[in-house]
Amino acid sequence: MAQDNFSCVLYGAGKVRFEDRPVPEISDPHDILIRISYVGVCGSDVHFWMHGGVIRMVSEEEPLVMGHEASGVVHTVGPAVTRVKPGDRVAIEPGFPCRRCKQCKEGRYNICPKMKFAADPPHTHGTLSRLFKIPDDFAYRISDSLSLQEAVLVEPLSVAVHGVRLAELRPGQTVLVQGCGTIGLLAAATAKAYGARSVFIADINKAKLDFAKGYLGCATFVPDLTSTPEQDAVRLKREMDLEDGVDVVLECTGIEASAQTGIYALSAGGVFVQIGLGKPLQALPLLAMCEKETVVKTAFRYAPGDYEIALELLDSGKVSVKPLISSTVPFESAAEAWERTRKGEGIKNLIQGVQD
Amino acid sequence: MAQDNFSCVLYGAGKVRFEDRPVPEISDPHDILIRISYVGVCGSDVHFWMHGGVIRMVSEEEPLVMGHEASGVVHTVGPAVTRVKPGDRVAIEPGFPCRRCKQCKEGRYNICPKMKFAADPPHTHGTLSRLFKIPDDFAYRISDSLSLQEAVLVEPLSVAVHGVRLAELRPGQTVLVQGCGTIGLLAAATAKAYGARSVFIADINKAKLDFAKGYLGCATFVPDLTSTPEQDAVRLKREMDLEDGVDVVLECTGIEASAQTGIYALSAGGVFVQIGLGKPLQALPLLAMCEKETVVKTAFRYAPGDYEIALELLDSGKVSVKPLISSTVPFESAAEAWERTRKGEGIKNLIQGVQD
Amino acid sequence: MAQDNFSCVLYGAGKVRFEDRPVPEISDPHDILIRISYVGVCGSDVHFWMHGGVIRMVSEEEPLVMGHEASGVVHTVGPAVTRVKPGDRVAIEPGFPCRRCKQCKEGRYNICPKMKFAADPPHTHGTLSRLFKIPDDFAYRISDSLSLQEAVLVEPLSVAVHGVRLAELRPGQTVLVQGCGTIGLLAAATAKAYGARSVFIADINKAKLDFAKGYLGCATFVPDLTSTPEQDAVRLKREMDLEDGVDVVLECTGIEASAQTGIYALSAGGVFVQIGLGKPLQALPLLAMCEKETVVKTAFRYAPGDYEIALELLDSGKVSVKPLISSTVPFESAAEAWERTRKGEGIKNLIQGVQD
Amino acid sequence: MAQDNFSCVLYGAGKVRFEDRPVPEISDPHDILIRISYVGVCGSDVHFWMHGGVIRMVSEEEPLVMGHEASGVVHTVGPAVTRVKPGDRVAIEPGFPCRRCKQCKEGRYNICPKMKFAADPPHTHGTLSRLFKIPDDFAYRISDSLSLQEAVLVEPLSVAVHGVRLAELRPGQTVLVQGCGTIGLLAAATAKAYGARSVFIADINKAKLDFAKGYLGCATFVPDLTSTPEQDAVRLKREMDLEDGVDVVLECTGIEASAQTGIYALSAGGVFVQIGLGKPLQALPLLAMCEKETVVKTAFRYAPGDYEIALELLDSGKVSVKPLISSTVPFESAAEAWERTRKGEGIKNLIQGVQD
Repeated sequence: MAQDNFSCVLYGAGKVRFEDRPVPEISDPHDILIRISYVGVCGSDVHFWMHGGVIRMVSEEEPLVMGHEASGVVHTVGPAVTRVKPGDRVAIEPGFPCRRCKQCKEGRYNICPKMKFAADPPHTHGTLSRLFKIPDDFAYRISDSLSLQEAVLVEPLSVAVHGVRLAELRPGQTVLVQGCGTIGLLAAATAKAYGARSVFIADINKAKLDFAKGYLGCATFVPDLTSTPEQDAVRLKREMDLEDGVDVVLECTGIEASAQTGIYALSAGGVFVQIGLGKPLQALPLLAMCEKETVVKTAFRYAPGDYEIALELLDSGKVSVKPLISSTVPFESAAEAWERTRKGEGIKNLIQGVQD
Repeated sequence: MAQDNFSCVLYGAGKVRFEDRPVPEISDPHDILIRISYVGVCGSDVHFWMHGGVIRMVSEEEPLVMGHEASGVVHTVGPAVTRVKPGDRVAIEPGFPCRRCKQCKEGRYNICPKMKFAADPPHTHGTLSRLFKIPDDFAYRISDSLSLQEAVLVEPLSVAVHGVRLAELRPGQTVLVQGCGTIGLLAAATAKAYGARSVFIADINKAKLDFAKGYLGCATFVPDLTSTPEQDAVRLKREMDLEDGVDVVLECTGIEASAQTGIYALSAGGVFVQIGLGKPLQALPLLAMCEKETVVKTAFRYAPGDYEIALELLDSGKVSVKPLISSTVPFESAAEAWERTRKGEGIKNLIQGVQD
Repeated sequence: MAQDNFSCVLYGAGKVRFEDRPVPEISDPHDILIRISYVGVCGSDVHFWMHGGVIRMVSEEEPLVMGHEASGVVHTVGPAVTRVKPGDRVAIEPGFPCRRCKQCKEGRYNICPKMKFAADPPHTHGTLSRLFKIPDDFAYRISDSLSLQEAVLVEPLSVAVHGVRLAELRPGQTVLVQGCGTIGLLAAATAKAYGARSVFIADINKAKLDFAKGYLGCATFVPDLTSTPEQDAVRLKREMDLEDGVDVVLECTGIEASAQTGIYALSAGGVFVQIGLGKPLQALPLLAMCEKETVVKTAFRYAPGDYEIALELLDSGKVSVKPLISSTVPFESAAEAWERTRKGEGIKNLIQGVQD
Repeated sequence: MAQDNFSCVLYGAGKVRFEDRPVPEISDPHDILIRISYVGVCGSDVHFWMHGGVIRMVSEEEPLVMGHEASGVVHTVGPAVTRVKPGDRVAIEPGFPCRRCKQCKEGRYNICPKMKFAADPPHTHGTLSRLFKIPDDFAYRISDSLSLQEAVLVEPLSVAVHGVRLAELRPGQTVLVQGCGTIGLLAAATAKAYGARSVFIADINKAKLDFAKGYLGCATFVPDLTSTPEQDAVRLKREMDLEDGVDVVLECTGIEASAQTGIYALSAGGVFVQIGLGKPLQALPLLAMCEKETVVKTAFRYAPGDYEIALELLDSGKVSVKPLISSTVPFESAAEAWERTRKGEGIKNLIQGVQD
């Protein structure tokens, strides 16, 4: 019985097994167990599936339960829990900070050096289990109007919200979003919800741009890979009819040339936020940045308050994530969802939780 | 008579002439004429002297009066001037913004697109004249305790103040300053004045580091050019006994490897300020930055309030610029001051104003 | 001819005359003359009409041209003007700062000690003239979709925008607006446009609250004058279902009891912005403020960028001012518009410009 | 044995008993027990001594261990503790937040609604015991150069630091500190350490002002109780030779007239920080505040980082607390220290911890 926690475990690149694991015990009085309903697939899952990890690797000796974008229903609560009760439908924030370090105390738990983030090798297992244990304050009750499938998307939406907040975006500003993946689409939607005067979205994939146009109703830009980033930025500003450049760039591709184009496209005093992760070392136009006093902010996951804002954007209808959900596979077909995502099929592919 | 404005004019790389030019006319009622006392030499002057310019070039057809770090005595004032009067000894802020654009109105005149900065080709002449015209609010009366030679250094000190302010440096923080030139030394001195807990200064030139140690009384670091920036950052943190890294980096060299080392040396949530100008495109460790949510700010000259703070640091004795003044040459030996600076002789070499 | 500037001039409480005055001369190359189309009436106009001034009084010896909320068409432009051309329809920002003081340079021209604000005794005349002179950067071209009547409301909308910006309002926050006058209604509309999760509006006048409900679609609150402010705040939080209080209060009445209720209604760490002007000395619950670390910001007119945001809110349809326009009287019936406003008839009453 | 925790317990106004109480148990693995060395007396202790409490009262049924400013030596550590070890000399931060609420997560634990602050009725006992239990991250190791007596003063110094940080004080600004008690003196000392250009300190008690002059070397101001606050502010600005007013006011008296004078003395755009607690409702000059866009911040205890800054100010010698220590009485003479403080004898009176 205490072993009855059916889980999706990665033992190495391409090696997945479905097996019973121990049910987590409630040790802290604020802990709760969540019956997982849906888990989303993101780029890092695909990377694990293909390569067995990003920095630290999983192995036969140190396998890992996968998954970090998740929703579920509260199953059991510890004795001190008052925020939620069994049966509550919740979105899960999947990183648990130490609450004691300088960063945690100063309001930036996303960069807590002791952060335990779901599906982080070697020992922090993910959400692809029947039951998943979290502290109660990382479970967010969702309103009746939000489905448990949609609730999975609160995680990437919080990434987008975090980037927009770092940009200190305010009504009336112009914004360039680079990249039409889940994060790029949600960053653009969030920028609109924050009152951006105009949002432009860029991608080299025209099918994705078409989707973005329909989803967001915003202008699009196709980078010209035969131009230099500087030339592309000139064309972009001309197409946007923004002589002085854009106020804010939200870079969601992680691609060096994209970052360069974005920075060249900025107005004097503009802000560039790096949200997408890419190759470790990237050349930036530092001299042009100095002349415009560009500020570069880098975004890492989500900080206190981001989940609440993401949920509010969904509840108020300012952002809709339903159009981004492309497919849902049963729990034991998790690898299929990773494969689809690897091939670029769909936007957000979901894995259903363990069925009773 | 109206031609009696003896000036030092550059006609191309290595081509300097001393000649009479028209005395500027007071056109705006707030204009004043300054009798220039001393002019400092900075790296950009040397670049002009060697190459004839940085981006836009001077020429026989479009020669340029040189100089932008300057002090002097008020000579004539326009009818609306009340801040200063003839005879007042002043430090000169040498860039005159339009006062009407978005940037000017929002408090960031240093990135005014219409800025007229001294000694900027083709048509904005510099301070190496007998008389120099400025708006009265860009002349700062100096106290009796400050010499006119020292007053020249208010300009580079304001650059340092601007960088420190961008860093939002607060008492108790740890700071790494990269580069032991005038700006680096003054950035370190300013960081101390702002209450930094410890300031470390780095340079590959040991003689400069020795000077810095004496001037600042702070710990020094010698980059190892045979290491990677990442390795050097590890050693730096070990030598500094700062396991978590420094809170603030003030990069004053413009060198790519230095920027990389600085960023690797930062703590989670730290701030990196690029003050030194270097090659246009520089590779930065973007992935490491994202994981620490590093903020990169780029600094351009000085913003409203920086000159006042610089003067206050001097008046209160928190920063002393006297030790940085290395030599003073007569007006017509300006090229000698440029040559000395080119050869790395001394820290700040001055040129005396025109003698009657 | 040069006298042909028909104007509405106040000579004392209740003493208005319509008379020719000199056409302003373009002295600065950036000056422009505006042919005034409409002028709005605000509470301060009524105060002048009733009492002859607020602090400084008008008199037979020092009469004053009235009016400061205005729109018009560009009539003549100085030689340096490029932003607008004759014939352009514009909203007018009616305060002209010195551009040279600390406050102006640091981006806060609204508190410039040398501000020349329209209709400020003794010598700064207002907009109720055929032609009104302003610097070109205080004229804002309006889009075709905005009428010249609506353009008058950009002024009070900018007041609202300024207050909301001071509150650093962000999506998801809860907001209480106190007062259902023009400013209160526009503050609430702006708060919604900034993404407030819920906006509550309070007024003792139920007819005004009904209008507010229709205009904003938001919840309303009726203060109980027989309760203490503290009791009223408890009831307000209960009615709002906000146990912890509201995040932001925008006080637009200037009434002491209202400010107290607002502060008691705030959550820990909340922000209170005083927008309405009232009696000079007002008792605030300082001890309760300390325990919650309440921040009180006071708002004065509009700062750089506020007009642009106000125009963007109108252009994007996020805020509509048309429903607030109650009446329009001919130029020579200005006193009738003041009387209507004095009696509380309508929300925004307009005065038409001089007809040819 | 487990009862061997000799403590100073208040049973009502004027009713103090010294008695054995249970030794606290280490329940959380991060808990530590501190052997208390010294405890300071502050105004609120005197209030308890005289009135039995401030808001909630102590009683025969619900007595309370007194004390919250304290230093000590680590006695026992829980199994997860790595920051400190038995024998470490520490300053104690005496308020323990929940770490889970919105305020805690966003970096403002001082306004945590679930804060457990030492000596808060009915059930949160204070530091006047032989052993006191705290979470390890609220114990701050002190350097060898700091005595355990001085370490008591880290608490009030952190209050001062918190106020100065709220003011966003930067070098070159002018500061008025109102009140010459411990907090006022330390606020002034901190303002100087933050680079204030000039600090003025005000008090009606000339003996205290004389001490302040010696301790701080700063200018002093004596309020004239026969003047209005507005008149006093005019005189203050004249005496300070600050025509435009001061940039920052740190109000440490809690007296209404003092707050008014401080606000009138501010420059346009200045910041007023209320640090001292006084009567619940206080009249502020709201109209004058609006015209200057005064920001009023209220300060409550200390936020994350304040203790570290306070310790750094002491370590670096920028602030010295030794001159403020007036007397030290044995543990069982605690009431004598309260009495001295009540009579205004000395500045900071200390109570020695329980001797073995």
